[in-house]
Amino acid sequence: MLSKSCFLGGIMKTQKIKKNLDVLKQLVAELKVIGTAASLLAWDQEVYMPVKGIKVRGKQLAYLSSLSHVKLISKQVGNAIKELKECKDDLDLKERALLRTLSHDYFKSIKVPKELVSELTETTTLEQRAWENAKNKSDFKIFSPYLSKIVKLKQRTCELIGFKDSPYDVLLDDYEPDITEKILDPLFSNLRDETVKLLKKIESSKIKVTEHLNLKLAIDDQKRLGQTILSYLGYELDAGRLDEAVHPFTIGMGSGDVRITTHYYEADFTKALYSTIHECGHALYEQGFDKVLELSGLDEAVSLGIHESQSRTWENIIGRSPEFIKFLLLQLRKMNTSALKGNNPENVVQAINKVKPSLIRIYADEITYNLHIILRYEIEKDLIKGKVKVHDLPELWNSKMKKYLGIMPKKDSEGVLQDVHWSHGSFGYFPTYSLGNIYASQFFAALRKHVSNVDQKITKGDFKPILQWMRDKIHKYGAIYTPSELCKRATGSELNIKDYIEYLTNKYSRIYKV
Amino acid sequence: MLSKSCFLGGIMKTQKIKKNLDVLKQLVAELKVIGTAASLLAWDQEVYMPVKGIKVRGKQLAYLSSLSHVKLISKQVGNAIKELKECKDDLDLKERALLRTLSHDYFKSIKVPKELVSELTETTTLEQRAWENAKNKSDFKIFSPYLSKIVKLKQRTCELIGFKDSPYDVLLDDYEPDITEKILDPLFSNLRDETVKLLKKIESSKIKVTEHLNLKLAIDDQKRLGQTILSYLGYELDAGRLDEAVHPFTIGMGSGDVRITTHYYEADFTKALYSTIHECGHALYEQGFDKVLELSGLDEAVSLGIHESQSRTWENIIGRSPEFIKFLLLQLRKMNTSALKGNNPENVVQAINKVKPSLIRIYADEITYNLHIILRYEIEKDLIKGKVKVHDLPELWNSKMKKYLGIMPKKDSEGVLQDVHWSHGSFGYFPTYSLGNIYASQFFAALRKHVSNVDQKITKGDFKPILQWMRDKIHKYGAIYTPSELCKRATGSELNIKDYIEYLTNKYSRIYKV
Repeated sequence: MLSKSCFLGGIMKTQKIKKNLDVLKQLVAELKVIGTAASLLAWDQEVYMPVKGIKVRGKQLAYLSSLSHVKLISKQVGNAIKELKECKDDLDLKERALLRTLSHDYFKSIKVPKELVSELTETTTLEQRAWENAKNKSDFKIFSPYLSKIVKLKQRTCELIGFKDSPYDVLLDDYEPDITEKILDPLFSNLRDETVKLLKKIESSKIKVTEHLNLKLAIDDQKRLGQTILSYLGYELDAGRLDEAVHPFTIGMGSGDVRITTHYYEADFTKALYSTIHECGHALYEQGFDKVLELSGLDEAVSLGIHESQSRTWENIIGRSPEFIKFLLLQLRKMNTSALKGNNPENVVQAINKVKPSLIRIYADEITYNLHIILRYEIEKDLIKGKVKVHDLPELWNSKMKKYLGIMPKKDSEGVLQDVHWSHGSFGYFPTYSLGNIYASQFFAALRKHVSNVDQKITKGDFKPILQWMRDKIHKYGAIYTPSELCKRATGSELNIKDYIEYLTNKYSRIYKV
Repeated sequence: MLSKSCFLGGIMKTQKIKKNLDVLKQLVAELKVIGTAASLLAWDQEVYMPVKGIKVRGKQLAYLSSLSHVKLISKQVGNAIKELKECKDDLDLKERALLRTLSHDYFKSIKVPKELVSELTETTTLEQRAWENAKNKSDFKIFSPYLSKIVKLKQRTCELIGFKDSPYDVLLDDYEPDITEKILDPLFSNLRDETVKLLKKIESSKIKVTEHLNLKLAIDDQKRLGQTILSYLGYELDAGRLDEAVHPFTIGMGSGDVRITTHYYEADFTKALYSTIHECGHALYEQGFDKVLELSGLDEAVSLGIHESQSRTWENIIGRSPEFIKFLLLQLRKMNTSALKGNNPENVVQAINKVKPSLIRIYADEITYNLHIILRYEIEKDLIKGKVKVHDLPELWNSKMKKYLGIMPKKDSEGVLQDVHWSHGSFGYFPTYSLGNIYASQFFAALRKHVSNVDQKITKGDFKPILQWMRDKIHKYGAIYTPSELCKRATGSELNIKDYIEYLTNKYSRIYKV
């Protein structure tokens, strides 16, 4: 039996927890409403906004972003977080997750003074313009002073936020909580070595990939095809849209409104098709958050790596499989188009999975793609740690390209200047692409153990059981579990490249007959 | 020479004015940024939002609206307004206008307690559903208890805000500052009598309007035609868009982004065409606000009547003129369509300007349109003043229809239930439609004195000088001048129906040969 004072203490504690949780719940609901409004403004800017709308749009987005920031860093929120941390054990799963995600954002925000945030924003704005200019002229010197400045600002940010092993961990954590250099170093060096081995094996194949595919398809037919495929994959068209944008992207405004964009090229319908399937994978994740999580702050992707695992699953593991291509050919015949007509299905599979080292990351095949990422990872972590200087980047880039991919860019616009990320100050972002590939293969290997006849299902266009597994094991949880918890629960294993190497080996041995 | 103390007093006064103006300028910039963000959300809801997006959208709009409200009614704003009112004479034209518009909104907002605002919102939400249901079933009894409640709430609002002569003036002022029952009563009764006379004259005409026009046009061709006409009229397509919506509307997010929508009917291209021209008139107004007014709070339409004058000018005075129809026929021939092919131009002009009393306001011709408005005006002002009871409305409606238009609805869905306005609680809105017609004819008569050969210009599609006059005399001022100041400055006269009756008489005598 409890003494009276202890009992009262218990009630008071519960009331305090409730009060603090209410503060945080109110905050995340507000942040979500503001954030999703900003998402619509951002979507419209890329899709439908007339050019002269940009001035007011910039002010709207800046206003909403600063409003969210002010709400997040309030004293009341800080106190609630501190008090809740002291009685973590009394919180349930979702409450702990809410505390985890909010305190992550809160502490990262309060440790960086307003002046530094402004300086970062201003610098990246100038830097991005410099990068565009530098890329157009293929002249790294135009970009390097800005890149140097942003590296210094990022280093200062990392110092202020604090870290255990490496300042670069602070930046990784922006996109992928749980992941550190210590985890990535062995993971990526193994992946790099295994990939280089695989690449050599594939390059020894006698298969000559055809370049004569009928890829032309009228834009209207491509749109129809896109809608058909989306609806087969399980994308809810009454909870989303497919529009056109220069650079395809997915953006969610709650699970009831997750929009995707693509870009059409009449000469090659597979470009829009695979970008649509990729974005659809992202969208299926966000449409799949449990409805009870709406506006709870947990109706969010838990990390970019997990997000990317979903897009890569649908684009690569499913979309580029021989089984899916069989299904696709049937759809094209049903639509009565001439696309891929008369092409041998085996040749189509080979062409869509052609492996060839190339200079540009976004055009890379599944095998060489990760080499592009690992190269960037190795460079950017040393840049942040001060082991590499900005002016050495072009040479370093080129020598790594030569070493890993066996080719070298003739100009920096096809080398170190090709990606927009560093001009945004987005260091730590690139690794999430490869993490997405790795997670995707781990998830899919686990799925194969629970869903029977996956390949036959794909051929038939029966994607429901696949989506259902993803919903049950990944999507519905939103940000409740951390990426590593999610991976462990869904697959029984920690993050590792075994399944990925096995997937790549099986797939390409079969296609390239090696 | 000024004494030292007075001089210091002068400096202190100037500083105080500056400080208070800064408060208001900061506020309106914020309100504008929030308001235009809300506008995009509202636009998207009508045009592109997937159905399942509605839940979050509602929360976003409610949040932004309450954010604006809280900002507006702050103590700091109230003090700034009070202090500035005391030294009005020291303010320049724009500063006075800013004070006028802000204090208008401020005092109307603080006088209505939060509970009443919520009750109004809740009631109109329920009421609107009841109205839809009542209209579908053509059963006024379903609607009347809700209408009674909203009338009571509106009466209470009017009492709280206060008025000199009539509570209805408070509601008129929501849409049309400067306008009161005292002004409208004689204006509208004259207009009603003159219109009835004109109608009788037209009905005596021997002209038999043809019903055999080739109005069919493929939607894609209608879209092309719309874009062509918009660009002729001077609508800046890089500062706006034309999209589809169930009910056509215009929405502005700063003068650099003013979007219009229309609705296409394949069987009759003139429906979308004239709705596009109408909305274009609204949009030209908003695109024409002086760029220096951006985010100043004066980059707003000064009233709905003035706004409507612009849409009616382009739709009716210009768009339905024999000269414009000549120009339109040429465009259709250039586009190589069969629309209006083989139809005699004179018959087309008659058909597009056919006068015939009808039950539904939105299908009414230029002559009978105002009778529909005046009927509503007479009813709603007495409703608010308590002179008429809700349950008497159907009978009152029908008897006025009989008296003014000579026809009577067989069911309430074609009578008192036809419009959405009262179900929104929008009493005082209807008169702005007729005010728009009146202002439009006054402006156009003044324009004819300064722009030569207007009719020839319209035939040639040379709308630039017309738009330029509107820009110079109306658009660029935004909300700087009140409607009556604007009218006086642009036309030399006060609001009056002389030009309007002259315009109608000339136009219809010519078309109907009476």
